[in-house]
Amino acid sequence: METNQSFHMTPEEFRQYGREVVDWLADYYQHVEQFPVLSQVAPGQIRAGLPNRPPQHGEQFEAILQDVENLLLPGITHWQSPNFFAFFPANTSGPSILAELLSAGLGVQGMSWITSPACTELETHVLDWLAEMLGLPEKFMSHKAGGGVIQDTASSATLTALLVARERATNYTSNEKGCDGRLVAYASTQTHSSIEKAVKIAGLGINNLRLIEVDDRYAMRLDALASQIQTDREAGLLPCFVCATVGTTSSNALDLVQEIGKICEIEGIWLHVDAAMSGTAALCPEFRYIQNGLELADSYCFNPHKWMFTNFDCDCFYVADRTSLIQTLSVLPEYLRNKATESGAVIDYRDWHVQLGRRFRSLKLWFVIRHYGVEGLTYHIRRHVELAQQFAGWVAEDPNFDLAAPAPLNLVCFRHRDGDEFNRRLLEDVNQSGKIYLTHTSLNDRYTLRLCVGQTNTEEEHVQQAWELIRLTARKLSQF
Amino acid sequence: METNQSFHMTPEEFRQYGREVVDWLADYYQHVEQFPVLSQVAPGQIRAGLPNRPPQHGEQFEAILQDVENLLLPGITHWQSPNFFAFFPANTSGPSILAELLSAGLGVQGMSWITSPACTELETHVLDWLAEMLGLPEKFMSHKAGGGVIQDTASSATLTALLVARERATNYTSNEKGCDGRLVAYASTQTHSSIEKAVKIAGLGINNLRLIEVDDRYAMRLDALASQIQTDREAGLLPCFVCATVGTTSSNALDLVQEIGKICEIEGIWLHVDAAMSGTAALCPEFRYIQNGLELADSYCFNPHKWMFTNFDCDCFYVADRTSLIQTLSVLPEYLRNKATESGAVIDYRDWHVQLGRRFRSLKLWFVIRHYGVEGLTYHIRRHVELAQQFAGWVAEDPNFDLAAPAPLNLVCFRHRDGDEFNRRLLEDVNQSGKIYLTHTSLNDRYTLRLCVGQTNTEEEHVQQAWELIRLTARKLSQF
Repeated sequence: METNQSFHMTPEEFRQYGREVVDWLADYYQHVEQFPVLSQVAPGQIRAGLPNRPPQHGEQFEAILQDVENLLLPGITHWQSPNFFAFFPANTSGPSILAELLSAGLGVQGMSWITSPACTELETHVLDWLAEMLGLPEKFMSHKAGGGVIQDTASSATLTALLVARERATNYTSNEKGCDGRLVAYASTQTHSSIEKAVKIAGLGINNLRLIEVDDRYAMRLDALASQIQTDREAGLLPCFVCATVGTTSSNALDLVQEIGKICEIEGIWLHVDAAMSGTAALCPEFRYIQNGLELADSYCFNPHKWMFTNFDCDCFYVADRTSLIQTLSVLPEYLRNKATESGAVIDYRDWHVQLGRRFRSLKLWFVIRHYGVEGLTYHIRRHVELAQQFAGWVAEDPNFDLAAPAPLNLVCFRHRDGDEFNRRLLEDVNQSGKIYLTHTSLNDRYTLRLCVGQTNTEEEHVQQAWELIRLTARKLSQF
Repeated sequence: METNQSFHMTPEEFRQYGREVVDWLADYYQHVEQFPVLSQVAPGQIRAGLPNRPPQHGEQFEAILQDVENLLLPGITHWQSPNFFAFFPANTSGPSILAELLSAGLGVQGMSWITSPACTELETHVLDWLAEMLGLPEKFMSHKAGGGVIQDTASSATLTALLVARERATNYTSNEKGCDGRLVAYASTQTHSSIEKAVKIAGLGINNLRLIEVDDRYAMRLDALASQIQTDREAGLLPCFVCATVGTTSSNALDLVQEIGKICEIEGIWLHVDAAMSGTAALCPEFRYIQNGLELADSYCFNPHKWMFTNFDCDCFYVADRTSLIQTLSVLPEYLRNKATESGAVIDYRDWHVQLGRRFRSLKLWFVIRHYGVEGLTYHIRRHVELAQQFAGWVAEDPNFDLAAPAPLNLVCFRHRDGDEFNRRLLEDVNQSGKIYLTHTSLNDRYTLRLCVGQTNTEEEHVQQAWELIRLTARKLSQF
């Protein structure tokens, strides 16, 4: 056997190329505003630049890195540009990126405690820290009956919550016998599309998803929820799950968690609260009202990977009763058995979500929280809200534009007064300029523009320039 | 408004701290063999070293990095040690780690084509490359009716395949009406535990999962599968899904895909093939027989994050008919609508899995394939198989040990002749030495040790030392 040949990158090469990548990224952040925010390529253009066949022989690292710049960069939509105002943000920060690098380098698995105890224990610890930082009810912390776990996305968190709700409502027999078509789930018409996906995946069927109408603030109507539950009970169905949203994707509407929670408590229905982006605002005591009533919820999630300077993926999912979660998802084949698990003294996070394997994702949360401290995090969140409020003020004052919904935090929904088609063209022209990237939604059947302030480096100048560009583009369009 | 304060890490600080992390990792890889492979901490020990309360004020980066070393490292089980032989590997490599760093730094979302065209197009392209490199049937490639997508884990891939199977079997009505308790899924008793989890999640219920008995090579018995399907049909049930495994977790058993495929073809049942670890072996033409019959499969997955030098998470999931996949999982709210999607000319990968958001994971596959080339990848895979075969030879020759199952590739199942309790103590003593980490399974109700060769830097000396340690430890135990 030959033993000396190796195609691996040596530690010394890793040192050298690692510096090149770090420098490349530092340069990228220094120049990100020079690129069009929204990629301007046509479908197929990126693939057309790539060789049809895979390489037989290895290539130089520099050549690969060069191709990132030459071949891929034109196809990048720059989520980390301070001029990115689309969707919800997926922001990040230096400490988070470097912790992700460490996590990739250590390359450990956190499926069981034994497979890397630090991976599990740091996660439990940091999620307890976060519960304190956000002022979450104590029941969601690990010294009580609950606890937190990192999921990849709010979609997965919602699905997980729905599965536990399904099992609790059927005395843990759906896992055995399958769904029977009687279980019903509730959310508002404004709830994120992941609820529809979860209801399909979990076997309830979307015919058993009730999208409850909303009030003039786009929050779930309580009377409509209560009466739909009664209608379903009278029809012999089994209401099992309500998803309340703190900050809807369309307009940042705030469902009334307290009032919904009271209905769920009386009815014995699982209440999940999805605060994917807006949950981060609760770091600041003055915004903590958005989660009033959370003590009535069975589960809660928010995404540090949206607005808390922590790179994707990182959704924090909390349950008040971890036993029901574990009972729902636990599977223990012989090859995963070990003394620590059998002692009952440890957490095996594989029983807390769909996947088995898991990365060391708490590392980036730990780095972010320690780098910024509560002080730094709250400072920047407040700034983002201030900037969005400033933008909302400019819209409100402009005779050509209207606010389209309340703007409680960092998302502003607005429209030009010249109607849907005008707004559609306005959005397209603004985005094709490459200077900023906005997206749209539909509110009350009207085409609506959204501006969300949440990218890490967005400052007053960026929001100002965005507003000037929007006004200027609208003026040009009006002249035709 | 104050505008000058900032708690963010500047690009210049990122440059400096980035180098420190890169150097830290290079040092780590140079010294990884000095640590106990299996962490020796007690439950709670890592948490006990962490402050109870989150920090109010930010801390220096160096202090945080120092704490990784002081507080966390004792709680790390070193998956990237060349002396890690447990479970299946989750290996990685320099180019993969640096691509993950780039991906975290760019911080783009690949949920829709428009949200970063390069993220989608590189993924389609590299998964086509891989299909060619592995000799997968052409139907799984994007120029045909199929295509590949990166899922996080094989657990998610199996769940996704099951969902499409569920919908196809019910004419796409289960998504609407929910499951009805008639759908049945099949796998062998040796199939990975994720099938049980998927069957629960998808609402079929484990009473409708048939675990088919295996032959003396631990492969699914064809006669048992065929007759169970008939039994279920006669009972009015609806067989919809078979999972065949290429390389089971327990013993690396190879289900006969061709023969199972013929049964599925006749019966009109979705065939999913799970080759999580062993699929990588098909890079080498001489091992490609393991996937004979794959042209009869509807879906296929393998994990470059296990054995292909690509860090977790990275499961490659292929379907022969992408339309049925998209029809099963597609959800399109207004805020995600865009011209490119409506043109039908692009792929929106959010419709290919459970989650909505997604990282730029094809970047690391692209880096790995280009760094190693087919030549480098096949060289190292062959070496791992050679080393495992050498180990199997030593076991076979030793009068105190027996091989417990065929060892077709890089996993060897074996046991000492002194029985279950002896083997249990042997495993515990070997692992507590900190010199290597092995895990166990149960085969034919007998406690069985497993040694899997798959960590990137494992060489002949490591396998030799492992065998010497196992023999020495057994000798000591025998003397009591």
